[in-house]
Amino acid sequence: LPDLADAVGSPNLLTDPDVVAGYCVDWTGRFHGGAAAVVRPASTDEVAAVVAACRRHGLALVPQGGNTGLVGGSVPGEGAVVLATTRLTAPADVDAAGGQATVRAGTTVAALHAAATAAGWDYGVDFAARDSATVGGTIATNAGGVRVLRHGDTRAQVLGVEAVLGDGSVVSHLGGLLKDNTGYHLPSLLCGSEGTLGVVTAARVRLVAAAPARAVALLGFAAMEDAVTAALALHRDLPVLDAAELMTGAGIDLVCRVLDLAPPFAARHAAVLLVEAAATGDPTAVLAEAVSGVEGVVDAAVATDGPRRAALWRYRESHTEAINHLGPPHKLDVTLPSAALAPFLAEVPAVVRRVVPGADVWLFGHAADGNIHVNVTGVAPDDEAADDAVLDLVAAHGGSISAEHGIGRAKVRWLHLNRSAAEIAAFRAIKRALDPDGILNPGVLLPEG
Amino acid sequence: LPDLADAVGSPNLLTDPDVVAGYCVDWTGRFHGGAAAVVRPASTDEVAAVVAACRRHGLALVPQGGNTGLVGGSVPGEGAVVLATTRLTAPADVDAAGGQATVRAGTTVAALHAAATAAGWDYGVDFAARDSATVGGTIATNAGGVRVLRHGDTRAQVLGVEAVLGDGSVVSHLGGLLKDNTGYHLPSLLCGSEGTLGVVTAARVRLVAAAPARAVALLGFAAMEDAVTAALALHRDLPVLDAAELMTGAGIDLVCRVLDLAPPFAARHAAVLLVEAAATGDPTAVLAEAVSGVEGVVDAAVATDGPRRAALWRYRESHTEAINHLGPPHKLDVTLPSAALAPFLAEVPAVVRRVVPGADVWLFGHAADGNIHVNVTGVAPDDEAADDAVLDLVAAHGGSISAEHGIGRAKVRWLHLNRSAAEIAAFRAIKRALDPDGILNPGVLLPEG
Repeated sequence: LPDLADAVGSPNLLTDPDVVAGYCVDWTGRFHGGAAAVVRPASTDEVAAVVAACRRHGLALVPQGGNTGLVGGSVPGEGAVVLATTRLTAPADVDAAGGQATVRAGTTVAALHAAATAAGWDYGVDFAARDSATVGGTIATNAGGVRVLRHGDTRAQVLGVEAVLGDGSVVSHLGGLLKDNTGYHLPSLLCGSEGTLGVVTAARVRLVAAAPARAVALLGFAAMEDAVTAALALHRDLPVLDAAELMTGAGIDLVCRVLDLAPPFAARHAAVLLVEAAATGDPTAVLAEAVSGVEGVVDAAVATDGPRRAALWRYRESHTEAINHLGPPHKLDVTLPSAALAPFLAEVPAVVRRVVPGADVWLFGHAADGNIHVNVTGVAPDDEAADDAVLDLVAAHGGSISAEHGIGRAKVRWLHLNRSAAEIAAFRAIKRALDPDGILNPGVLLPEG
Repeated sequence: LPDLADAVGSPNLLTDPDVVAGYCVDWTGRFHGGAAAVVRPASTDEVAAVVAACRRHGLALVPQGGNTGLVGGSVPGEGAVVLATTRLTAPADVDAAGGQATVRAGTTVAALHAAATAAGWDYGVDFAARDSATVGGTIATNAGGVRVLRHGDTRAQVLGVEAVLGDGSVVSHLGGLLKDNTGYHLPSLLCGSEGTLGVVTAARVRLVAAAPARAVALLGFAAMEDAVTAALALHRDLPVLDAAELMTGAGIDLVCRVLDLAPPFAARHAAVLLVEAAATGDPTAVLAEAVSGVEGVVDAAVATDGPRRAALWRYRESHTEAINHLGPPHKLDVTLPSAALAPFLAEVPAVVRRVVPGADVWLFGHAADGNIHVNVTGVAPDDEAADDAVLDLVAAHGGSISAEHGIGRAKVRWLHLNRSAAEIAAFRAIKRALDPDGILNPGVLLPEG
């Protein structure tokens, strides 16, 4: 470990077991590891020195940003070194004329939003963990979130990256040119690579136009199918739609109970859709007109000012916290083809209870792009019968076993449901090309072998 | 060659020198090769058999779509086998509900547009060579074109690909799920790889909303700088802007002379901008209002109906043909950072004439995203002094030596102006991973060695 101390300076090499332990578990408590040490480099050169030291000593290196991932992708295995990006921060460098920003990997998503907003712009990716999740982590996982339907995923925002690859080389391309066909697109390859190809240290991202006004509506439906149909119709017909989030009556009840919130409606509805429109002009009128054309709405609450919008969003964003209150859930983040979404939602509770009779199934997510978070509680952490059943059902419907959380450690053994042997072989070849010693995040994304 | 005949059937293995010669030159006449044979596979399996045969015999394989590229990327070297995608066609399979299409590699861009339009949608990438250029070719080159500022480049359209990699394996992921984080993003890697990693045989692409109405305006300016400022301002302020194409008075004069067209304005203007808006409602009013806020417009012509819009577009789209009439031009397709665009345009003619006194410099392109096509005529085909001077100037301004045409054979020796040794080493490692024998398009994109 002296090489690691040389790389980052002794104060930033953490080996006290009590301190290291804090980096060895994810926040849901489901994934545990046992790192030998934690390093906190403050520059790309220090990251390169860490990678070189780990190569020399054959140590596994696990990049860790906000550690808010849900598939164990930033939880170290026994004996690994955690590379915390805590000190890879600086104020985001916003190009207000060009609508771009250069941002270092350890910057939180919330800090990037704040910097963009201060310059008259916005950032296109947003989700509940924004205060802890880092830009580097969102690139590694190709984070999605609540605005994908409007602005695309993280890959769609990233114009260039600086990274230390697994072979120790530093690549940097942060010019932000909108058209630049000069070689293979490393930013897109690193987006979603889950720390297995390189450690991202900085990125150039595009910003999106700030919405002068927003309106949020919570819509009650008597049936889940009606809510799904409404989400897809609004996505097709309302260009200014920023979000369309599906919830169940049971989920809202749980959130209200755990967080001691008043229910949003006097009556209870089987399905609830949160929709947000962002526009110049009057988004409330635009949203009201669009919603008036939607069938099946039996109840509605609308908010325009910031605090009331936040209050409606709280029902959706508190789902993760409320469900975690019931014990570590099995979290399955999946995408269905749009035509298969309603049938899948109808089938999944019974499919789970067939294999784990006492389980509870919580369904919520980004309905308009087919992405549903299936959370299962009342199952032992090591019992994967429910996971098997849900992911088999997803694959049978032509869906993806990971919409936006990635594969991590949690889903490696199901990757074959979506990816052929030839695809996995191509992934392995790319991994060997950029990380020839296999030191970066072993056991994550790709089956070992 | 018997293995190749087995792969595609004798009638689709072409070896007659007169026939093969037609596949050995690009349409500008600047790049010449000397293929041993041409194969025309009709299925992904046949492509895989061709790749396997070339690996066995150590033959270079050069994929060729419409052969409309401008950097020699589809022109074979001596002794290579050309893989023509002519027979990899079928009607595009349009998912009208989901706004996506599955399309085979040999389908022309025009045919994809027609299929999308027939289903009530549009395709986001468009450019003058649409009738010959193929979808496979646009993926290999990550084609840009006239609508990048609205819809992004080809990479932004491609949700999934089917391809035969250089190692002979077939990868296919055409489900079109909007969120799907299950491994490295091969579609983004293949986009812009110029046939050096795999042969794309099919793709799943997103479609964009069809614009119910369009308006085109040709705007005259007394100075190039005014036209650049106007293009950037319109891009910032007009969300429905579909295109903003810059031309010079000299370029318009040449087009009118070669194609025998009437000039667009009674007076001659130093710079001309073609702008197109596509919107629901009244795009003419929207465009007129936006243009009225732009400084420096000294003349304007507006068109709304199809034939008159096409007539205005003809001044822009005929530039390539008119310039080619002067003999094979040196074509340099570059991007400048927005702040550097006007200074670059002012400097480049003198920079060229300093090294080639008799040369003519033609400037046109997609001004709003910084992309300019610098065409130089009156220079011997093998004299690269002007190319050196222009690309050095681009690099000095922080620009890209290839905006949308790619590196091909033409720009390999300048790649180092934009890419570090570490980046080129990473590209080589990826190339070796997916094409271990180096049979795919050797000499294109990456320096040999």
